[in-house]
Amino acid sequence: MEDASIQSVPYPTIKRYPAYLQVLKELKSTGITTVSARDIAERLGLNQVQVRKDLGYSAIIGRPKVGYDIEQLTSALHQLLGWQDPKEAFLIGAGALGSALLGYRGFQEYGLDIVAAFDLDPSKHNTAIHGKKVFPMERVPELAKRMGVLIAVLTVPESAAQECADLLIQAGIRGIWSFSPCKIEVPDNVVVQREELSAGLAVLSVRLSEMLKHENNGPSAPV
Amino acid sequence: MEDASIQSVPYPTIKRYPAYLQVLKELKSTGITTVSARDIAERLGLNQVQVRKDLGYSAIIGRPKVGYDIEQLTSALHQLLGWQDPKEAFLIGAGALGSALLGYRGFQEYGLDIVAAFDLDPSKHNTAIHGKKVFPMERVPELAKRMGVLIAVLTVPESAAQECADLLIQAGIRGIWSFSPCKIEVPDNVVVQREELSAGLAVLSVRLSEMLKHENNGPSAPV
Repeated sequence: MEDASIQSVPYPTIKRYPAYLQVLKELKSTGITTVSARDIAERLGLNQVQVRKDLGYSAIIGRPKVGYDIEQLTSALHQLLGWQDPKEAFLIGAGALGSALLGYRGFQEYGLDIVAAFDLDPSKHNTAIHGKKVFPMERVPELAKRMGVLIAVLTVPESAAQECADLLIQAGIRGIWSFSPCKIEVPDNVVVQREELSAGLAVLSVRLSEMLKHENNGPSAPV
Repeated sequence: MEDASIQSVPYPTIKRYPAYLQVLKELKSTGITTVSARDIAERLGLNQVQVRKDLGYSAIIGRPKVGYDIEQLTSALHQLLGWQDPKEAFLIGAGALGSALLGYRGFQEYGLDIVAAFDLDPSKHNTAIHGKKVFPMERVPELAKRMGVLIAVLTVPESAAQECADLLIQAGIRGIWSFSPCKIEVPDNVVVQREELSAGLAVLSVRLSEMLKHENNGPSAPV
């Protein structure tokens, strides 16, 4: 597979790859070695034409009536995502969400290995959260350089987000996965991806309220 | 405000409300009492026309040159989202992600109070994770009924997702916030909202790879 091919994969396809990988992993754990696009599509509630198209960006060809080799397809998707070897990352902001994410071992599956945490609050320095040491923010530049870390997971409040991002950028961080609910200004050579956990919950709350209200057949308090 | 108005708020708007609430909270914590749509838009990197339109679904009117009263607007958005009083929820699947979410106190801000955890694995029963007791799955019906819990956060592997969802539905759960990367079949009177943490990380990985590759001016390994 040509490495350059990664540039041609559209983002909506990229976003579906982790779910495909999860299906492949589950199947593999039960001893299954091949899977069809149709089976993947059914498990994820997607259109099989879409799945076939998405998998077409890999060099792996599905065999008629057999499907894709799970091992080969897993490896190809990992390569397209750059997840063959987990990349080390720093977590910035050891508050409630940051601590939760430090305890989540699943990120390694997603090619991300959070190796250290940093916080502005001195009372957190030199403590450890889920076995990860918390350093003062000032140590980011030195440790990022020494460890060659390019990715940071940002979980600070809005008020500290830009200040922390500026420090990360100065320290050579090039990719920021931000859970802070605000815009961050970065130069063109830094990538920011924003995650909004609460958005999905908001939609769930409202959809559930609407349904219950409709059942009660009249106005009532939202759930 | 008419309660029925909640039904007319589009989902993309609903998804932005939590970010608005976060901005309002941060401003309030610094002693500020009013905010303009323009200021909210700038902080979140949104279009101010969009913000003004979104806030228009509340009954709160911004005053020219002054803006919205933060207290009133917060309360109106909470009401539109049904977040005035946190609703109790169960967490299903006390694995890595489930444990992380149990430790995240921030959900209360989002109107969600996770009161207990449940797992299929007997070795986890009667333990406590971040102070929340882990019960056997079989106890969901009894406890859901007794506590009037209607919402579940689902963090089980794909292989267990449908089985757990079926049990939840039988137990009277009406809203499922699913972090399991698969489709779940539910009857029409149950709402499922799927969260895919890894999708954002996949896009970050690939965008960063593309940028670094471009800088190196030729094919190289993805980051």
